[in-house]
Amino acid sequence: VFSRIDHIGVAVAEIEPALELYRDGFELTVAHREVVEEQGVEAVLLDVGENHVELLAPLSPDTPVGKFLARQGPGLHHVAYQVDDIDATLQALRQAGMRMIDEQPRTGIRGSRVAFMHPRATAGVLTEIVQPAAGAGAH
Amino acid sequence: VFSRIDHIGVAVAEIEPALELYRDGFELTVAHREVVEEQGVEAVLLDVGENHVELLAPLSPDTPVGKFLARQGPGLHHVAYQVDDIDATLQALRQAGMRMIDEQPRTGIRGSRVAFMHPRATAGVLTEIVQPAAGAGAH
Repeated sequence: VFSRIDHIGVAVAEIEPALELYRDGFELTVAHREVVEEQGVEAVLLDVGENHVELLAPLSPDTPVGKFLARQGPGLHHVAYQVDDIDATLQALRQAGMRMIDEQPRTGIRGSRVAFMHPRATAGVLTEIVQPAAGAGAH
Repeated sequence: VFSRIDHIGVAVAEIEPALELYRDGFELTVAHREVVEEQGVEAVLLDVGENHVELLAPLSPDTPVGKFLARQGPGLHHVAYQVDDIDATLQALRQAGMRMIDEQPRTGIRGSRVAFMHPRATAGVLTEIVQPAAGAGAH
């Protein structure tokens, strides 16, 4: 079902110091940068082979990532698994009784289609499934 | 430097309920299972393409994973990046001024060589680098 880890999401207070670490210290290539108003974040995607690190900085304190930072500080926020067919995967997960935050896929960064599972269904790990936009996942 | 995400480590109170989720619910294949007395954990590695999920259950409450669970409950514990030459990577990271928990590689599960960076050097993300044992990384 899951073809690979698409990315890990890392919550940070500010993008720039984190970029210094991941881009300059770890020598990862920045693949994409986007402000997602709907989710209240600025996101930067860096390549790690076929996987990615997604840095997430909140646009304000009253966003999900802002509340995460207030609660537990910067750190690992979620993991995303890549799938070929998110509609089929969502149907299979629902049939297996998995509780979802998103019953239907919504648009993620870079034109991907994404859905989040409920952390209570996944032993405390905020888990996302991602179907990349055509062309975006194959570099 | 980093060729891929080797694994995400997930802290759980007990292995069996987590296996039901990752093996049966997510249909991931169990690749390895090992009790690592030195680190005070039972670890199960599941394949996600060329990446892995590592479930970590503490052998007792006074272990690092036991203390993590007491502090913040089950969830994402660390991320590990795969490298071809851990000695060269460690030298480069030290020269870049990165603070390490392990100055020298130690033995991880499945005969890998691993080293942890200090979370204060990595914006709150416990970060591991892994050089797989010959043959173990290429399935």
